[in-house]
Amino acid sequence: MSNRHLLIIAHGSRRQASNDEVRQLGERVSEIRGAGIAQVAVAFLELAEPGIPEALARCAAQGAEEIIVFPYFLAAGTHVANDIPEALTEFSAKQPQIKLHLTSHLGASATLAQTILDVASQPG
Amino acid sequence: MSNRHLLIIAHGSRRQASNDEVRQLGERVSEIRGAGIAQVAVAFLELAEPGIPEALARCAAQGAEEIIVFPYFLAAGTHVANDIPEALTEFSAKQPQIKLHLTSHLGASATLAQTILDVASQPG
Repeated sequence: MSNRHLLIIAHGSRRQASNDEVRQLGERVSEIRGAGIAQVAVAFLELAEPGIPEALARCAAQGAEEIIVFPYFLAAGTHVANDIPEALTEFSAKQPQIKLHLTSHLGASATLAQTILDVASQPG
Repeated sequence: MSNRHLLIIAHGSRRQASNDEVRQLGERVSEIRGAGIAQVAVAFLELAEPGIPEALARCAAQGAEEIIVFPYFLAAGTHVANDIPEALTEFSAKQPQIKLHLTSHLGASATLAQTILDVASQPG
């Protein structure tokens, strides 16, 4: 099995608590990940660290052979359609031996509707 | 069983396609909802219609006895902490007979980490 990393990319916020929410989510994902994912990391498009290039370089330094990139965005705006793909293209030009997989963004995830129903069934 | 509605509240965007993504998500949630939820609706905090007061009034007009309110937000900022609760309080003052349940926001949902792993396991 190849050394596969998961990189969760969020927008980033001036509000540090929002960035910390993303980091904590990344830790939860890491805790429950299966054997198919070696490491989980988070990156921010802007306003918080690490940025996307830094996070991808860190994955590479840690021996990643594949990186699954998950856009933690609700809508398919410019960031999802352009900015994130461009950052990946730049990285691939420098590190072509590392396979990158860009997934659908959160708002288009097939299981999101069920996630919402799960929350709604446990009101409190 | 009481007449229970689910109201998904999004921020709203100047970009109509983003608002339409939310409306489509609401339709998907409606399609797969169980018998415990009579109707699913979406509302927007700003920049798109319907607003929260209008959407709540519509639920009431359709006979809702309970409304589960789901904040479709990634972070617990001012909108989640203050604006949405205030809108619910105003509605309850006018329609105290309708029970409102405010759930955790999407970013704090217990199953979100698993949702991300599900997406990551189907890269494409």
